[in-house]
Amino acid sequence: MKIAVLGGDGFCGWPTTLHLSNLGHEVHIIDNLSRRWIDTELGVQSLTPMDSIQERCRIWKQETGEKLHFHLLDLASEYQRLHQWLVAERPDAIIHFAEQRAAPYSMKSDRHKIYTVNNNVNATHNLLTAMVESGIDAHLVHLGTMGVYGYSSVGAPIPEGYLDVEIDTPQGKKQQEILYPTRPGSIYHMTKSLDQILFQFYAQNDGLRITDLHQGIVWGTHTDQTRRHPQLINRFDYDGDYGTVLNRFLIQAAIDYPLTVHGTGGQTRAFIHLQDTVRCIALALTDAPAAGDKVKIFNQMTETHRVRDLAEMVAGMTGAKIAYLPNPRKEAAENELLVKNDRFLSLGLDPITLQEGLLDEVVEVAKKFAHRIDRSCVPAVSAWTKDIANKVDTDPEKMQLRSVS
Amino acid sequence: MKIAVLGGDGFCGWPTTLHLSNLGHEVHIIDNLSRRWIDTELGVQSLTPMDSIQERCRIWKQETGEKLHFHLLDLASEYQRLHQWLVAERPDAIIHFAEQRAAPYSMKSDRHKIYTVNNNVNATHNLLTAMVESGIDAHLVHLGTMGVYGYSSVGAPIPEGYLDVEIDTPQGKKQQEILYPTRPGSIYHMTKSLDQILFQFYAQNDGLRITDLHQGIVWGTHTDQTRRHPQLINRFDYDGDYGTVLNRFLIQAAIDYPLTVHGTGGQTRAFIHLQDTVRCIALALTDAPAAGDKVKIFNQMTETHRVRDLAEMVAGMTGAKIAYLPNPRKEAAENELLVKNDRFLSLGLDPITLQEGLLDEVVEVAKKFAHRIDRSCVPAVSAWTKDIANKVDTDPEKMQLRSVS
Repeated sequence: MKIAVLGGDGFCGWPTTLHLSNLGHEVHIIDNLSRRWIDTELGVQSLTPMDSIQERCRIWKQETGEKLHFHLLDLASEYQRLHQWLVAERPDAIIHFAEQRAAPYSMKSDRHKIYTVNNNVNATHNLLTAMVESGIDAHLVHLGTMGVYGYSSVGAPIPEGYLDVEIDTPQGKKQQEILYPTRPGSIYHMTKSLDQILFQFYAQNDGLRITDLHQGIVWGTHTDQTRRHPQLINRFDYDGDYGTVLNRFLIQAAIDYPLTVHGTGGQTRAFIHLQDTVRCIALALTDAPAAGDKVKIFNQMTETHRVRDLAEMVAGMTGAKIAYLPNPRKEAAENELLVKNDRFLSLGLDPITLQEGLLDEVVEVAKKFAHRIDRSCVPAVSAWTKDIANKVDTDPEKMQLRSVS
Repeated sequence: MKIAVLGGDGFCGWPTTLHLSNLGHEVHIIDNLSRRWIDTELGVQSLTPMDSIQERCRIWKQETGEKLHFHLLDLASEYQRLHQWLVAERPDAIIHFAEQRAAPYSMKSDRHKIYTVNNNVNATHNLLTAMVESGIDAHLVHLGTMGVYGYSSVGAPIPEGYLDVEIDTPQGKKQQEILYPTRPGSIYHMTKSLDQILFQFYAQNDGLRITDLHQGIVWGTHTDQTRRHPQLINRFDYDGDYGTVLNRFLIQAAIDYPLTVHGTGGQTRAFIHLQDTVRCIALALTDAPAAGDKVKIFNQMTETHRVRDLAEMVAGMTGAKIAYLPNPRKEAAENELLVKNDRFLSLGLDPITLQEGLLDEVVEVAKKFAHRIDRSCVPAVSAWTKDIANKVDTDPEKMQLRSVS
């Protein structure tokens, strides 16, 4: 297949590109390199030393003989170039990662809120419009997030996209299938909830074939392909905005900084290993909806954990201490999260668990590159409201530390 | 109160401005005048001769002594000016009409789709962000549309915004309140569905006080205030993009053109008179939610009719013939629409019905200004998909006419 990977220079996009190229597909990366610009804005960098996209593509060609095509293009502002590219190349599938994807970054200031909404909504909508206008019949696979549901499962597992509800009518109860209701907790998550409405419309009105992957938090750094050469290594973010909770624990442990748990740590999150992410995307490509079908939705996650349990797990492996800090997010202190993921399991996914893979991350990534860590970037300080910002204090001197037995 | 009317030069915005000024409020119009620019783009004009916004404001001052403040400002692209204005003026309430509001216009081409999404989403989101950032405590009243629900009520009345659903859990059934699910049928309607998610988030995260009015199709031209001087007259759109189905029937009858019903005319729509619209907005201002409340949602409509029944009604009053044409929209041929509107009725709304008000429109508007009608603008030709565009033929010579007994 000819496949376009939008955002193919990013954390999930790059290993997906390599995985698909390795499977024999012709892969085109379309990226505006905004993620690299945001590193510059924030004054942070990937823990792993990351080459330019051009250099990465060159190394892949050298190692495998396979050419990766790179196109510098901004989806949100260059509709005409996108349209022309689709008409000229007519890809069979499009994988869409090209959105600002950090909740804390999306909440930093009015400018970041506006950027995230404008970029994410227009990128997705321009793509959908260009697909219709170019008349191509590509399968669109989009990376969504479990976070659109607000991390609450009201005691029942979150189904894969749809919910049957009963509506009382004068003629008795009627069954109706609806999109599982969303309740996003950040501007970033909100844009993914908006995407869902865009997809519903374009599948219904124009018969676009769309798969939406509601992904959990991705952990892990290496895949079979990124391991093939040091310069193919994937990015690893550990700063307070882009670093996931697990990455920040790993880094804190590596530099003898306490593991910072926000609030009670009772927040339950869904997780998936990066290697499983790229496998899921390849699996989703084999199971495309037909024109006229509703959007196909998968929950792309393999396990759930409470944040404090993750902290205990990392502390147990490393001897780190745990510190409890005020939570800069506006969210429930404790939540249950039950999620169905039958679809990928039935397609053959055999998940890598945190229990078996986490020690590799400690040794092969966090400790190996510990000399590159900038301690000042680790605290998560982007607050969800100004009231919270005034209350949050991330000075490590004031932390209440405790050891883990 | 000091009230900002965003889109205060438009079809609903202008009479709302006058109604609120008449009630003694200090009214500021914020408008980018895009609706006038779209008239220019389409080569159409209001049936009623409409003065500039500056001249309209001058006449209102002359007639009533009340000053209307006009600010030329583009919400979607001038965030900083919007923010500065809010900080300087600190309005008590903001009425938000400032969105592209025609479904056919939103479906004309890729350019129109992109404009509508970009304009409507960014206008609404910039406003919400600016309200948070400026720290003002204004009540936001937004004009939404019944059309977000896709004109389907599955046999039960559409409630005012929220639906209680039961979710099966291992601990038994749990009740959960969700936003009534949307299923928008055009890009325009889709943007109002996106707005709903934006409002949900900002009410929840920032405690913004928001009322969302899900309005039916507005009919009628005059209000008590627009009647006060010929130069205060409201706009009346009859072209295929901005003219509502009822306005186009009135105009077709006035020029002895057949009333063009698309499909079977079995589409049921919700309606409200313009005079009731402005009353509803004033009522909504008296019933503001508190900070921390969920978004308050009203169904702002007073009656429902099938399109073919409206055609019969207008034909009966005027002797016009009815022609059935292919439908350029992608929608169900026939739909039921039951809607709850208890909230406005309980606040004292006493609706003007089509049965009692329609003849006035025929005589005072359509016939009075018939000499200004451009026949070529009347057909609705914006198709929902390219396949439909290829099938739709609006040549009146090919219409199947029939008289109404």
